Amino acid sequence: MEKNFELKLERVLDAPRNLVWRCWTEPKHLMPWFCPAPWKVVDCRIDLRPGGEFFNVMQSPEGEKFPNDGVFLEIVPESRLVWTNAFRTGWYPNPGANPMLTTIVLEFEDSGNGKTNYRGIARHWTPEATEQHEKMGFYDGWAVAADQLVAYTKTMGG
Amino acid sequence: MEKNFELKLERVLDAPRNLVWRCWTEPKHLMPWFCPAPWKVVDCRIDLRPGGEFFNVMQSPEGEKFPNDGVFLEIVPESRLVWTNAFRTGWYPNPGANPMLTTIVLEFEDSGNGKTNYRGIARHWTPEATEQHEKMGFYDGWAVAADQLVAYTKTMGG
Repeated sequence: MEKNFELKLERVLDAPRNLVWRCWTEPKHLMPWFCPAPWKVVDCRIDLRPGGEFFNVMQSPEGEKFPNDGVFLEIVPESRLVWTNAFRTGWYPNPGANPMLTTIVLEFEDSGNGKTNYRGIARHWTPEATEQHEKMGFYDGWAVAADQLVAYTKTMGG
Repeated sequence: MEKNFELKLERVLDAPRNLVWRCWTEPKHLMPWFCPAPWKVVDCRIDLRPGGEFFNVMQSPEGEKFPNDGVFLEIVPESRLVWTNAFRTGWYPNPGANPMLTTIVLEFEDSGNGKTNYRGIARHWTPEATEQHEKMGFYDGWAVAADQLVAYTKTMGG
């Protein structure tokens, strides 16, 4: 647990920045890697503007569905993406945020040789939520998803 | 108390929309009316962009200072302004939001004859926060501030 109630994953991804960006911002390229298998994403909508919808539905191996409803806060193409489940579209507070109010800051930098410095930061409003997110498996989950993202980019073609 | 945990003030203000907008978006024009007297605003910073700072310090008649730290979420000039104290600048969650997490949606429309349809909506994450804000005097406070805003616009000149 870090100051500002942050959890952070930092990785050098063996994938070019433009593909990593597309994997985060296009539903068809997000769905294949976003959930650690055998969980999967079965629905996704992305409206890439501040206040725009970032929606996805995760499905457990048993078929249970977990919808995640959020909005984008800041978009700097191929560099920075910020979204939160603290709001629904229209700037309505989202008291049913699943599983807790979270804001995600993603940072992407060229690392040379077609690799990308990748940083994913989850911020919370309380130390309890931070701890809960960590216990839910933030570090393992994001690491597996990052591996899946890299593997998926190898299939994206030119 | 309304659905979506909203409190709402609607008024026709005897002031043109461009002046009402300036009263909300320029520190020197916000400070004179923003707090119901004898409270006053003793400091204000406005960085009018999504994620930009909306900061002010209210001072009680006894001289006690209450800083309010927030950010803008959406800006449509002279039409719509959305800000929240749920974040500090840099998209850091603001657990010390004073006195509770709140998001304010302001809407401005021409009403003819130099008047403005003015709507101020306070949204909250919980019914408890909504009730707390109402008991703190949301309706009276916003009504008095709106009157002060109109009176101040008469002094702004052409």
